[in-house]
Amino acid sequence: VVTLARHCHARGWAEATSGNFSVRAGSDRLLITASGVDKGQLNERDVVLVGLDLRPLGPGTPSAEAPLHAALYRSDQRIGAVLHTHSVASTVLSRRAAASGVLRLAGYEMAKAIAPVTGGAPPELCLPIFANDQDSVALSERISERLARSAAVAYLVEGHGLTTWGPDPERARRHTDALEFLLACELEAVRLGGPLAS
Amino acid sequence: VVTLARHCHARGWAEATSGNFSVRAGSDRLLITASGVDKGQLNERDVVLVGLDLRPLGPGTPSAEAPLHAALYRSDQRIGAVLHTHSVASTVLSRRAAASGVLRLAGYEMAKAIAPVTGGAPPELCLPIFANDQDSVALSERISERLARSAAVAYLVEGHGLTTWGPDPERARRHTDALEFLLACELEAVRLGGPLAS
Amino acid sequence: VVTLARHCHARGWAEATSGNFSVRAGSDRLLITASGVDKGQLNERDVVLVGLDLRPLGPGTPSAEAPLHAALYRSDQRIGAVLHTHSVASTVLSRRAAASGVLRLAGYEMAKAIAPVTGGAPPELCLPIFANDQDSVALSERISERLARSAAVAYLVEGHGLTTWGPDPERARRHTDALEFLLACELEAVRLGGPLAS
Amino acid sequence: VVTLARHCHARGWAEATSGNFSVRAGSDRLLITASGVDKGQLNERDVVLVGLDLRPLGPGTPSAEAPLHAALYRSDQRIGAVLHTHSVASTVLSRRAAASGVLRLAGYEMAKAIAPVTGGAPPELCLPIFANDQDSVALSERISERLARSAAVAYLVEGHGLTTWGPDPERARRHTDALEFLLACELEAVRLGGPLAS
Repeated sequence: VVTLARHCHARGWAEATSGNFSVRAGSDRLLITASGVDKGQLNERDVVLVGLDLRPLGPGTPSAEAPLHAALYRSDQRIGAVLHTHSVASTVLSRRAAASGVLRLAGYEMAKAIAPVTGGAPPELCLPIFANDQDSVALSERISERLARSAAVAYLVEGHGLTTWGPDPERARRHTDALEFLLACELEAVRLGGPLAS
Repeated sequence: VVTLARHCHARGWAEATSGNFSVRAGSDRLLITASGVDKGQLNERDVVLVGLDLRPLGPGTPSAEAPLHAALYRSDQRIGAVLHTHSVASTVLSRRAAASGVLRLAGYEMAKAIAPVTGGAPPELCLPIFANDQDSVALSERISERLARSAAVAYLVEGHGLTTWGPDPERARRHTDALEFLLACELEAVRLGGPLAS
Repeated sequence: VVTLARHCHARGWAEATSGNFSVRAGSDRLLITASGVDKGQLNERDVVLVGLDLRPLGPGTPSAEAPLHAALYRSDQRIGAVLHTHSVASTVLSRRAAASGVLRLAGYEMAKAIAPVTGGAPPELCLPIFANDQDSVALSERISERLARSAAVAYLVEGHGLTTWGPDPERARRHTDALEFLLACELEAVRLGGPLAS
Repeated sequence: VVTLARHCHARGWAEATSGNFSVRAGSDRLLITASGVDKGQLNERDVVLVGLDLRPLGPGTPSAEAPLHAALYRSDQRIGAVLHTHSVASTVLSRRAAASGVLRLAGYEMAKAIAPVTGGAPPELCLPIFANDQDSVALSERISERLARSAAVAYLVEGHGLTTWGPDPERARRHTDALEFLLACELEAVRLGGPLAS
């Protein structure tokens, strides 16, 4: 968890207290960054153990967004790590495309780092966008409901950033690196008057 | 003070002799970076002790902008550190929004790193913008007068950058990191033809 | 090979599993990064030896894009290293200029790092752009055919990035550094409504 | 010389073989980076001693742009170091503003790091812009002639970058850091449809 947080902070995706990071610890528990911690000064003591039902299992207060992480682990036993990053590109694009409720990323070879190739073209990624909500339990219910209807590899919350995941910390981090690259490309393309299909 | 200055220089917010940084040293004194020091080569000898009345209390000449720092410490006993950064985003946006006298940052989750949440939405930040003035005593008087009328978490000076503060050096730095992130987002949003509400 | 990959990853040109890098190992063999390796975690074991005919000569699976590298080494005995980078600028510009099939970079002094000066002006570079194709053998045939007709110092694949080369790893890396700089300039120029001559 | 070159390379202002750097070595000699050296791999052996008349005084071939450096040292005994950087911002803006022959930077507090304040506003900087020329002796004559008529703190060559100087290596580097910051600001301002007064 600490390694994931430092990686994302070093890249400018978890400034100040933003961003939160978790790893599954068995079938019904997770380790997550504590609430209100500056990601530039995080260390091992800032990681909290909680149940997937959010019951505290050790000292410390988990991130206020722990419900969003727990909902993902409950929804799919194969998810082993969840990263919520808060980059400039994800913040700006999630607001720009909010009205349509989805950001489509098509025609990018990098998408192969996240999803399998099925035809002659690189996979198209559709990131659902949710309105921001300070009530993270209510937000996690809206997200779970929509993801249950249509699978996604990641989602955006408006003005708030990207959440992605993977079967283990290494692959979750790789998905984050690839998606942040794609969001940086899409932001450039939008500036030039291109993409932002939706 | 040296740690704060190096942090900001490393991020490109205090190039050459720009930027100045201070920490409260008791109820009526402050430690501040010396005048004309290159922030890429700063060390402990480049920090000067002065009274809140700007009386010299040790060797060295304080930054020409010491009056701006002292005025903040005098206005609020809870302020423990003041950072003036000089980034590309704050320089460009402070000029762009100068005519309206304020830069509003709304709809950004990151604002929670600086101000408390009061409703269902992240807090809205209003940064006053002041015309630049080489007479920093006169400038500090105009700033103090306006901040006394309406509280703010930070302010901008046109073509000159951001000043923010906090109860201790760590939180002041966190406010700076969060605000510089928000200014970077706002600059992108303006490029795309969006925000810059004011 | 590992040094080249780390250099490009550190600059953001080989995020996640993207990018691939090779060095000639004698007249009929090459060393290339393995398939699906995260370039942020690459080490010596992730380099694979194959023949220029793509016959495996040791353990490991070569990058799926090995045919593109092998075709370059077969076409010109003087090529000693090939770098395929995947930067934001090359991804965005390769899509933007795809319709014209070529990206011209003219009037840039930096072009001298790649091609000789012949007159009073810095050399003009023409980068062919190819449609992306998940069948890298078919893609390499289209590329070889076009490069045989008109020499180029590098090429772009749409939404996929830059491939360049040189007589040895050091000069190949220099060509990559110079071309990525030129693509960054061209992206800025296009944003300002300028170049993108083609 | 090596320290200056590494500083500028690390900031992306001297990619590949671009950029050249010199320091005065007495009244009639200078130390300058050698011709065609990759600035990412420069070391002490890549620095050449020549006279201000460009006579070789030791082993090695000086940068092809040594005449531009020597002309500055000859024109003003107070110049102790000269830096030619090749950043994205200076390349793009020098082309954009080339027709007017000058780039004006006004209203920026950072200008105080380069020029003295004379009134209530920060100093205005005027950077002459010269057409590029592969004959660096001819180019240096055109530059010397214009600088003799109107003093400047730095100049631009179209598509080729920035040259600035100072009484010693430390201050020359500070001028470069400050000017590159100002060019980055100006590039953002132009993107937003602002400045580029000339």
